[in-house]
Amino acid sequence: MRELEERILRDGKVKPGDILKVDNFLNHQIDTALMYDMALEIKRLYEGEKVDKILTIEASGIAIAAMAGYVMGVPVVFAKKSKSANVSDEVYSAEVYSYTHGNTNRIIVSKSYLSEGQRILIVDDFLANGAALEGLCSLISQAKAEAVGAAIAIEKAFQPGGDKLRAKGLRIESLARIASMSDDSLTFCAN
Amino acid sequence: MRELEERILRDGKVKPGDILKVDNFLNHQIDTALMYDMALEIKRLYEGEKVDKILTIEASGIAIAAMAGYVMGVPVVFAKKSKSANVSDEVYSAEVYSYTHGNTNRIIVSKSYLSEGQRILIVDDFLANGAALEGLCSLISQAKAEAVGAAIAIEKAFQPGGDKLRAKGLRIESLARIASMSDDSLTFCAN
Repeated sequence: MRELEERILRDGKVKPGDILKVDNFLNHQIDTALMYDMALEIKRLYEGEKVDKILTIEASGIAIAAMAGYVMGVPVVFAKKSKSANVSDEVYSAEVYSYTHGNTNRIIVSKSYLSEGQRILIVDDFLANGAALEGLCSLISQAKAEAVGAAIAIEKAFQPGGDKLRAKGLRIESLARIASMSDDSLTFCAN
Repeated sequence: MRELEERILRDGKVKPGDILKVDNFLNHQIDTALMYDMALEIKRLYEGEKVDKILTIEASGIAIAAMAGYVMGVPVVFAKKSKSANVSDEVYSAEVYSYTHGNTNRIIVSKSYLSEGQRILIVDDFLANGAALEGLCSLISQAKAEAVGAAIAIEKAFQPGGDKLRAKGLRIESLARIASMSDDSLTFCAN
């Protein structure tokens, strides 16, 4: 998606540890108009697929997932990172290692919100090692629901998550796929 | 806002400890069409006020804030609950006690995203004791920005936060104001 790629080139900053900092438009400050355009692109990519619900993970997946849910006319469920006093004990859960934060989170979804046979589209802001995406797929599988695919804002294609999960048969559409990045250059995969 | 009140009556559940569970449409599963209507109502309530930016707090404020930002044509910034590896060290911060989770979180916002003189609208899902709202006001004040007001989805008007902060001069608009609630009844404040 050209608009997102241009924005990454303009405002993204590469930090040590293969971190791409895009927090001035994607995951701390949110450019809501860009987010809406990204939602329309996700709708276009999955046109023709029946989608019952969108699944994302707190916190930075929520804005784009909510917008995509709105334009696609479906509800959004976000997996939570820790057990909250006002979430039912009846949950599906998975362990997800965060390379960014260097810790493991349990992610949970109430069993009320993922059901057998539902067709679920996963939406998230980043795909790198694929740990979050695997965790979300596990929640869907525990519910005997079906993963239609995943829509990712930014995929670090030089890290293994995307290839690994595509090899397992998951459809993954990324709005921007980064082939390589360093302090002074960033290139996208050819379409 | 009638649509939200009706939804609370239909799907909300009162739990011990004055917890109103609305996680099937507001803060775990999100009804994106309702969220959009709430965003339009927030826009209407603050029509005529200059708003440069919306400030919310992760995680459950993000969906409604993002939608409100989109319909009002402004960016959204969400305060984060813990220091992340990819947030700058240059942050404003405040301590917020969570009555729901029984713990204290430090909330932070990068100094890049709140600036002197900016007119900031706070958006959040709940107002009860007012701790989160006070923390967000503190971040705005540290930045020498100006709080235009707050737009809250659900205010528990029988708890002290709303009155306390209105008495300090903060404009607060709540889309649903709960006067009282118990296992078998829930009433809203008269408009």
